[in-house]
Amino acid sequence: MSKVLVFGHQNPDTDTITSALVYADLKQKLGQDVEAVRLGEVSEETQFALDAFGVEAPRLVEKVASEVDQVILVDHNERQQSAVDIDEVQVLEVIDHHRIANFQTEAPLYYRAEPVGCTATILRKLYKENGVEISREMAGLMVSAIVSDTLLFKSPTCTEQDIEAGKDLATIAGIDLDTYGLDLLKAGANMSEATVDQILTMDAKEFTMGEHVVKIAQVNVVDANDVLGRKTEVLSSMASEVQEKGYGLFVLAVTDILSNDSVLLSTGEHESAVETAFGVKVDDHEALLEGVVSRKKQIVPPLTSALS
Amino acid sequence: MSKVLVFGHQNPDTDTITSALVYADLKQKLGQDVEAVRLGEVSEETQFALDAFGVEAPRLVEKVASEVDQVILVDHNERQQSAVDIDEVQVLEVIDHHRIANFQTEAPLYYRAEPVGCTATILRKLYKENGVEISREMAGLMVSAIVSDTLLFKSPTCTEQDIEAGKDLATIAGIDLDTYGLDLLKAGANMSEATVDQILTMDAKEFTMGEHVVKIAQVNVVDANDVLGRKTEVLSSMASEVQEKGYGLFVLAVTDILSNDSVLLSTGEHESAVETAFGVKVDDHEALLEGVVSRKKQIVPPLTSALS
Repeated sequence: MSKVLVFGHQNPDTDTITSALVYADLKQKLGQDVEAVRLGEVSEETQFALDAFGVEAPRLVEKVASEVDQVILVDHNERQQSAVDIDEVQVLEVIDHHRIANFQTEAPLYYRAEPVGCTATILRKLYKENGVEISREMAGLMVSAIVSDTLLFKSPTCTEQDIEAGKDLATIAGIDLDTYGLDLLKAGANMSEATVDQILTMDAKEFTMGEHVVKIAQVNVVDANDVLGRKTEVLSSMASEVQEKGYGLFVLAVTDILSNDSVLLSTGEHESAVETAFGVKVDDHEALLEGVVSRKKQIVPPLTSALS
Repeated sequence: MSKVLVFGHQNPDTDTITSALVYADLKQKLGQDVEAVRLGEVSEETQFALDAFGVEAPRLVEKVASEVDQVILVDHNERQQSAVDIDEVQVLEVIDHHRIANFQTEAPLYYRAEPVGCTATILRKLYKENGVEISREMAGLMVSAIVSDTLLFKSPTCTEQDIEAGKDLATIAGIDLDTYGLDLLKAGANMSEATVDQILTMDAKEFTMGEHVVKIAQVNVVDANDVLGRKTEVLSSMASEVQEKGYGLFVLAVTDILSNDSVLLSTGEHESAVETAFGVKVDDHEALLEGVVSRKKQIVPPLTSALS
């Protein structure tokens, strides 16, 4: 069998990058010819995790069909979040923790999705189910993904399974979970040096909601003013993209990892959906969502309802 | 949490009925409030399996949304094969072994699909992963599903995992696999009492091939003469349906579960595609396909190529 590429979503976050590396490690140990790749730049948070455990980032690719016939998706399934030529290859497997949408196959496949906070929590089970030992490096990458996706267990997406997995993996990785976890989050939450373009692309996803395509970007901050101090510039850049790509709505969630609140900046024809979805007043394209940290659980579902 | 219904596809076969019962059993043992239901009549083969292990058929329902808000799907995911009001409820989980299509959720879910021959093979793993013992009754239902879906391991859809699961479950169920398996298949393969209408509808699916819509029905037999003895009547009924529905081709595969060959009856404007697809001569609308038992793996792909 020829080589299979394993990759996560565009605008990769820590869970997507490490899940590709970790699942490729498991598959290789099971004797399969797979390679982890990535569809975008490595964030500072992810680089912190890779450096902490001495692992190289996966190779950057733009397309996949010229290289392989078959792929494995981790941490995503919706085709608009995947490789641009995803329709030209066969998806052999999916390991994911998101909703299923815009996904279809011609043949049966291995699809493993669980409603947990992080793909790494599922990957840890797959090592156990396959009787493969988890190395210190892979444990370190997985616990980093869990800390990142659950904001150190504070996100409502976090489940008992994520907590149990995080603690076990921290032991294998030989780290103090709280100390390492906060350092990791802080490494990704310093927006003072980030350009507006970086803020809007580092963790941005498109969603189809009713008739509309909606873009939702999110950044973690320790000081919201790093972003809100440049609000005019940020909104202007968002508005240009709405024009160019035809989004019905573009929102940026600025999530404070210490207070666990988010400020939403929004623009687009259907901006009123933010008021409907969250029961808040949008004032000058800005709204405070108290206790909201999870795009998947707290932002996407109410916006989808409001727009469907 | 309120009650959750568990069910398989319309026109239920043995895997669909038993998978609903078996997964409901596992969920109940894990303390969850679930009930297995079914979307259609119980076949003679399925009734044989239920009687053999003293299990009642699930309750028949037509719709689900008036009863519950949440459901679990087994052995299918495509909405046109599911409850007619599937879009009005939340799909909490899917356990399946088919391709994924026409399926979408708003929220993350537990989705477990594996490219194996039978849903029961996956369900057996879920008992193990959850540390729940498999009762004699549930083992009997699961091995029945595996025998049915893989034609006693002879179908090309059968995997090593199905064989291993089938043998293990037969031991727990306390049956001789070959004897019981053949009795089960025979119970579903007696076509002497079936009407022509039943023969043509009990397992019939439409496929789009190239520009044409093709209908492929299949029946298992121990005595092909139960069907071929009424060939004129069967072909006349097929021809009427071709006229009425505008099919490019309508084929009925009469699959002998002892010899593992199929006789194909065909009619329609593009009947010559049968000769192209299988390299056989069609004589008076009839052709013998040696070693062909699987519609999915052995009939649909060559016909699709011939018609595209």
